[in-house]
Amino acid sequence: MNEHVGQEFDNAALVSSDRGSFFHPFTAIADQQANGALVMVEAKGSRIIDASGKEFIDAAAGLWCVNVGYGRREISDAIAAQSQKLPYFHSFNGISNEPSIRLSEKLLSLAPKSMRRVFYGSSGSDANDTAVKMLWYYNICRGKPEKRKIISRDYAYHGVSVASGSLSGIPMVHQNFGIPLDFARHVSRPDLYRDAPLRQCHTEEAYSAYLANELDQMIRAEGADTVAGFVAEPVMGTGGVLPPPRGYFQEIQKVLNLYDVRLVADEVITGYGRTGTWFASEACGMKPDLILTAKGLTSGYLPLSAVFVGDQIWSVFEEASKDGRVFAHGFTYSGHPTCAAAALANLEIIEREGLVEHVAAIAGDFRAAFDAAIGGCAIVGEIRSAGLMMGVELVADRDTKAKLPATAKIAGRVATAARRHGVLVRGLPNSDIIALSPPFIVTEEEIALIATGLRNAIEDVTQELRSEGLI
Amino acid sequence: MNEHVGQEFDNAALVSSDRGSFFHPFTAIADQQANGALVMVEAKGSRIIDASGKEFIDAAAGLWCVNVGYGRREISDAIAAQSQKLPYFHSFNGISNEPSIRLSEKLLSLAPKSMRRVFYGSSGSDANDTAVKMLWYYNICRGKPEKRKIISRDYAYHGVSVASGSLSGIPMVHQNFGIPLDFARHVSRPDLYRDAPLRQCHTEEAYSAYLANELDQMIRAEGADTVAGFVAEPVMGTGGVLPPPRGYFQEIQKVLNLYDVRLVADEVITGYGRTGTWFASEACGMKPDLILTAKGLTSGYLPLSAVFVGDQIWSVFEEASKDGRVFAHGFTYSGHPTCAAAALANLEIIEREGLVEHVAAIAGDFRAAFDAAIGGCAIVGEIRSAGLMMGVELVADRDTKAKLPATAKIAGRVATAARRHGVLVRGLPNSDIIALSPPFIVTEEEIALIATGLRNAIEDVTQELRSEGLI
Ligand SMILES: Cc1ncc(COP(=O)(O)O)c(C=O)c1O
Ligand SMILES: Cc1ncc(COP(=O)(O)O)c(C=O)c1O
Repeated sequence: MNEHVGQEFDNAALVSSDRGSFFHPFTAIADQQANGALVMVEAKGSRIIDASGKEFIDAAAGLWCVNVGYGRREISDAIAAQSQKLPYFHSFNGISNEPSIRLSEKLLSLAPKSMRRVFYGSSGSDANDTAVKMLWYYNICRGKPEKRKIISRDYAYHGVSVASGSLSGIPMVHQNFGIPLDFARHVSRPDLYRDAPLRQCHTEEAYSAYLANELDQMIRAEGADTVAGFVAEPVMGTGGVLPPPRGYFQEIQKVLNLYDVRLVADEVITGYGRTGTWFASEACGMKPDLILTAKGLTSGYLPLSAVFVGDQIWSVFEEASKDGRVFAHGFTYSGHPTCAAAALANLEIIEREGLVEHVAAIAGDFRAAFDAAIGGCAIVGEIRSAGLMMGVELVADRDTKAKLPATAKIAGRVATAARRHGVLVRGLPNSDIIALSPPFIVTEEEIALIATGLRNAIEDVTQELRSEGLI
Repeated sequence: MNEHVGQEFDNAALVSSDRGSFFHPFTAIADQQANGALVMVEAKGSRIIDASGKEFIDAAAGLWCVNVGYGRREISDAIAAQSQKLPYFHSFNGISNEPSIRLSEKLLSLAPKSMRRVFYGSSGSDANDTAVKMLWYYNICRGKPEKRKIISRDYAYHGVSVASGSLSGIPMVHQNFGIPLDFARHVSRPDLYRDAPLRQCHTEEAYSAYLANELDQMIRAEGADTVAGFVAEPVMGTGGVLPPPRGYFQEIQKVLNLYDVRLVADEVITGYGRTGTWFASEACGMKPDLILTAKGLTSGYLPLSAVFVGDQIWSVFEEASKDGRVFAHGFTYSGHPTCAAAALANLEIIEREGLVEHVAAIAGDFRAAFDAAIGGCAIVGEIRSAGLMMGVELVADRDTKAKLPATAKIAGRVATAARRHGVLVRGLPNSDIIALSPPFIVTEEEIALIATGLRNAIEDVTQELRSEGLI
């Protein structure tokens, strides 16, 4: 990569223009106005350069999405070719296009066998919104219009639209926005580190049984006739990188079956290889009725989401349509041919380079590198991971698991310090957890650099905390 | 364009694969299963070719969006270049990228002067969803959490997410989906052709006053303290291509001011030139607090939406952020650099070729061509238009305005017949209205071909209706 790339850009001018025009997502407006933006301009592999010429290793793959890495000529070429041929056409009223057809067939060949059709949108939020509407439509067609509550989990992240944001369980996402709406309910997230001990659950199995019972109680309290679905990420991402305890989804599944509640697997992060299998839901013992994907479908190169519809729901939709009615849901960009072409090229790379198997193969070394580099740090409470996603929970005291005060904003602080050491990691919202999710093509050498950078960042911040008397 | 392009494709194989894998938006599932898809494969200018090699003139510009026409090398090249340089990065936490900054600055330079910042998503639906959340956030920050109802209009189309679908007023969009949710209310759409006479309104001004009074009554009945916003397309699109009666938005605006209700202009169709001005809201006398755009922003080449935030709302957001809080809303693909590059190239074309002025200049001839070709047809009740968007309302009897029975599905039938004559037009949902919205670069000759094709289609269908005894 060109080391001097930043020099083409007038960083100060860009920062000034940004300040006056661009309303950033998930940003503290006053901070951005005061501090100015970090302007990214070029990237290759796992490396990214800002407008001042500084290089970073992107240990977060954008937002858990640039799985095949930046600068994949093959994807850009596929995008360019499709854009010249047929940049766009809609898929309403049974109209179709070649890349979306090829993609749909390809996706079904990769998905769990019970999946029947693929519905497209542009974001993980719209995939969740579509799932909500599909569940409502499904139950209305079955003559059960009251069966419409959807149970999610505390700290889950399912997006920010009014409906998907209602499913999300992160306090910040609700606060001041007037959500969650009352169709959404939340049970506990599985948190072996902090919650299981509080519940006196001394084995993973016991904790799974405890959580399944909590769900059972909630469904009974609400009335099973009012509950349409349960939505869960196989491995919870933004809510803390929490792999499910052993037996969790098997126990949950039994409860759902008992009450005729459909299961929605939100695989927006885990889909297409992040945990070392094409889909994480099957590997986690879920038998989903809907599978939601986005991010890794295109590795972020273009916006695209795909909702897989399982046989039970599809057969109701098909039956209902026999009176000629239109399934009146869809987006202008559902089945966008150029975005589908990007997905096809991305999946082609993943398959040809065996990246899913590669993730499974290097997951152990990835984990070991961080156990070695930061496992002994005074403020590292726990490291947990699944494939190439990892959470590092920061604490004031490793033995008591005592938290730092919220005002220390420890996760954001470590992420900022890591940036100074040339590494991009994410501080998760409303938590003291750092997330890592490097591109699948991250090299051994880069993993070592990330681990060292993160250790240095943690040590810097530990010094600061000591001098502030916080630890 | 290569006349034999279809021959590269195995149409039958594509149709079969489509049938078994692709869940189409806004499609009657049973029909698509029975009849198979129409597979589009290549396009240039206003022409598009299917996999069997048949060519159509796209008189709908996709779904009101391919405004600069297909095959614009300049846009594809900009997409390819950005994709190779920095295909994606997120804009969370004040991180930025060059194309999104340049686009934000450009957009503010084109927008009404009161607009302060631009927030991005990927669809018109998410723009509406974002508007709902912004209004709620705005009022919660102002200490008015109960002020959250949003008034829309019957037959409006604002998208399909749970919230934007609730704002939509088309019956089909609600039916069986369990929406609208109860934050949404609907007043009458302005329909000079059918509704004004029923209300005994004999001038446009009188009708505008009537509708403003209806809104006033609703706000008072609901309680002004519970009403946050009013959302309207400047020229209603999918709801019938209904330009506002004279004085409409001026009267509406007075009512909104009276009750401290913010105005949201949904310019997803009208933004960027469709009616002959950059934005239609100003030209229609609206003083919006939020302007929602998508479609024409990229001419559909890539998914992108932009919400303009006006000074009144922005200043509350800015003030609220002084305690360091994060505005916790945003999408993974908010500010997607490749999509922003597509928008910049698209706007560059519109400006350089003077396409907005061009639309204004040819609007009269466009209208005249259809008045001449179909104005006299027995089943054409009214033709109405604004710039390059046109609605043709079909009736059983021109004098009495009597409708055909809903079972005749007249709009879909005429659209299907037009397809046989090589012209793509849209039959609008739950209505007897055909919509036209050709690319801005449609030629005089193509307009003539569209007009002739549509006349032939209408005549074919008129014959059928006669033989069925329906007229
Ligand atoms: C599990 C999960 N679901 C949904 C979403 C929402 O996706 P988007 O930001 O594309 O709307 C995310 C985004 O991080 C996610 O991680
Ligand atoms: C006025 C208006 N608003 C919103 C939308 C929804 O846009 P999308 O289909 O991109 O979600 C549309 C789409 O046709 C529209 O015409």
